[in-house]
Amino acid sequence: MSTDDKMYISYNNVHQLCQETADKIKAFNPDLIIAIGGGGFIPARMLRSFLKEEGKPTTRIYAIILSLYEDLNSVGTQTETVGVDVVRTQWIDYAQAGLDLVNKRVLIVDEVDDTRTTLHYAVSELKKDVVEQAKKQSADPSNTEFGIFVLHDKIKTKKAGLPKDIMDSRYFAARTVEDCWIAYPWESVDIVHHTARAMEQGNDVFLP
Amino acid sequence: MSTDDKMYISYNNVHQLCQETADKIKAFNPDLIIAIGGGGFIPARMLRSFLKEEGKPTTRIYAIILSLYEDLNSVGTQTETVGVDVVRTQWIDYAQAGLDLVNKRVLIVDEVDDTRTTLHYAVSELKKDVVEQAKKQSADPSNTEFGIFVLHDKIKTKKAGLPKDIMDSRYFAARTVEDCWIAYPWESVDIVHHTARAMEQGNDVFLP
Repeated sequence: MSTDDKMYISYNNVHQLCQETADKIKAFNPDLIIAIGGGGFIPARMLRSFLKEEGKPTTRIYAIILSLYEDLNSVGTQTETVGVDVVRTQWIDYAQAGLDLVNKRVLIVDEVDDTRTTLHYAVSELKKDVVEQAKKQSADPSNTEFGIFVLHDKIKTKKAGLPKDIMDSRYFAARTVEDCWIAYPWESVDIVHHTARAMEQGNDVFLP
Repeated sequence: MSTDDKMYISYNNVHQLCQETADKIKAFNPDLIIAIGGGGFIPARMLRSFLKEEGKPTTRIYAIILSLYEDLNSVGTQTETVGVDVVRTQWIDYAQAGLDLVNKRVLIVDEVDDTRTTLHYAVSELKKDVVEQAKKQSADPSNTEFGIFVLHDKIKTKKAGLPKDIMDSRYFAARTVEDCWIAYPWESVDIVHHTARAMEQGNDVFLP
């Protein structure tokens, strides 16, 4: 794939994708956000500003950091490698954080749903944590609801699935796109060029 | 302070502040980044792209999430409140993350050095962790070097200090600015207006 086949996304576009989707996410009304780092950090922080409501505390963001094995071995900046397995770089220490997921609405945020491997891993592992936490309280783990927000969902054969209840009503993708290389601005080493390409492609701000 | 007295910073400006400072940070050569969330997530992720070197693995980002007490009680989106005390929302679980800080060069990233309260807290607490980790290995905790990267350091009376060795040679502020209200783009609910103001103020991209 040549450089020109990439889909360039500007920062302001990412910001507005978060803004657009925030209204739908507000209907889900998440109690907390879990950002999957590195890619989910930026949209999670942007989104939080749009979820903010007068008189209510800011939605807290917790971070988990996951990598695909192949990314770790990659020497380039490519982040689109098809992942075989997921590595936990960082997870939530619930006791330290004073975080109880039981009965909560939890929004998981990442930048892209590519092969779905990372999202599948995050949901599965977080659900195990909920079961463990619920057990200690003799509570019902099924009252915890997970939702997902991504900037882009790629139309392609996914390597892993997500629970039906999430896909049916709590899966928020700002855009559904063809399977292509998405160039996010935070990966760019020439943001002027990057933004110019995003503008050409209509992936900058939505002018009134 | 009226709206117009704010210093508006665009995303592309933040990106280029990271790029500019990356060369100096490369001389420090951090083994890992610890981002202070929410504000440090975005610059940390941007910076990582500029620290990337061919043939070397990507610098890992770990996250700690700190809040000032008053921010948590605030009902607005203001993040410039003078903090009285720091709350740990999330910390690193070293055992789970397989992270050993002994003998490491650690870059702490936040968006702004305002009263210095948060940075002081982060450095002090991380140093305690190093002492504890070093003790278990009968190693020397003083071989761990901390550095700091912020987008903006405000010229004002700080409420807390930082160790001299950091301030002397490992404190990287992309810009030193007068004490004013800095409007970061991720706090904006109208990014078109925000970017226009940043452009007017010369806080957008540095055109060639």
